[in-house]
Amino acid sequence: RRQPVVSETLAARMRFVMEADRLKSVTRGTTIHDGSRRENSAEHSWHIMLWALTLQEHSTQPVRIERVLQMLLLHDLVEVDAGDNPIHGTFDAAAVAAQEQAAATRIFGLLPAVQSAPLRAIWDEFEAAASPDAIFAKSLDRAQPLTCNLATDGGSWRDYNVTRDQIETRVGVKVKRGAAAVWDALCPEIDAWFAANT
Amino acid sequence: RRQPVVSETLAARMRFVMEADRLKSVTRGTTIHDGSRRENSAEHSWHIMLWALTLQEHSTQPVRIERVLQMLLLHDLVEVDAGDNPIHGTFDAAAVAAQEQAAATRIFGLLPAVQSAPLRAIWDEFEAAASPDAIFAKSLDRAQPLTCNLATDGGSWRDYNVTRDQIETRVGVKVKRGAAAVWDALCPEIDAWFAANT
Ligand SMILES: [Ca+2]
Repeated sequence: RRQPVVSETLAARMRFVMEADRLKSVTRGTTIHDGSRRENSAEHSWHIMLWALTLQEHSTQPVRIERVLQMLLLHDLVEVDAGDNPIHGTFDAAAVAAQEQAAATRIFGLLPAVQSAPLRAIWDEFEAAASPDAIFAKSLDRAQPLTCNLATDGGSWRDYNVTRDQIETRVGVKVKRGAAAVWDALCPEIDAWFAANT
Repeated sequence: RRQPVVSETLAARMRFVMEADRLKSVTRGTTIHDGSRRENSAEHSWHIMLWALTLQEHSTQPVRIERVLQMLLLHDLVEVDAGDNPIHGTFDAAAVAAQEQAAATRIFGLLPAVQSAPLRAIWDEFEAAASPDAIFAKSLDRAQPLTCNLATDGGSWRDYNVTRDQIETRVGVKVKRGAAAVWDALCPEIDAWFAANT
């Protein structure tokens, strides 16, 4: 067989997508809905992209769905190096942010510069919640784990002794900012669980 | 707290995204790259969306990346009902196709009609390889499992006693059709593995 020449550009892109496979081994604080195992950050990313496509009409502000999908596709890639930090856990926010910045530099840096710069920019925009697209994307990233906990009788809320007030300040504020109607849809079940269990 | 009114439209969309969680429990023939466990169809979907975003320039024909991403986001949802059929396994193709059609009707049918019709249409387009977007999307769906097997010293190729000729006819033809350069990039490693092991 002929040995075709593979450009360094394509080879670099292939190394990037191979490296990304490791996101499937980054486990989160929440489980999948049947409670059988911890969710990983790759399948979580897929799921909230489906939320975004399905629920785009319920964004608080108009969004460009193709940009939201790209943000969510990339948003957790840094966890390949930095791991996931459950929102109700205790961690040093500044240290985590520094780790994630270094991870973004390394991981997006695997790509040719023509591509690493725009992908890094869209990740930065997400991180900073710097646009309606990012605000909607972040609201879904916060809302989806709520449903994992509701589906498993409290799930990680029990692990971390979370209160209804903490849900409001750590999660509700951000979900409402990006997708107020989605928060309204989830609220009755959240209220009922905390009323019965705390 | 006030009890906001949640529209039936939003409630239907929420039921759809909840149902989709089950795709995380559909396991595939291939493992993740470290060989530690079988890959599931949700994380596989995420991964090939990243392939599409990264490798779009290497599509054989020009594509609209936002459509490719939507196709790949949705392409395996029918497996919630129909399961995954490994490409090198033995199965009744007509029976599987009928199962998947019924699954598509049920699952997309969870959505309001205004949304179920266009999402079903994009899934149909993917299934039929009926556009350059679908042809590129399908080529990545075939190419990514090759890398799982290459990363695990043959992986499911060993399970199914696959030959190099079968790779050519079942996989190579379709990868080349949508992304010839990606096939060229993978080919030397594939050839080397089969030369050493079969
Ligand atoms: Ca995260």
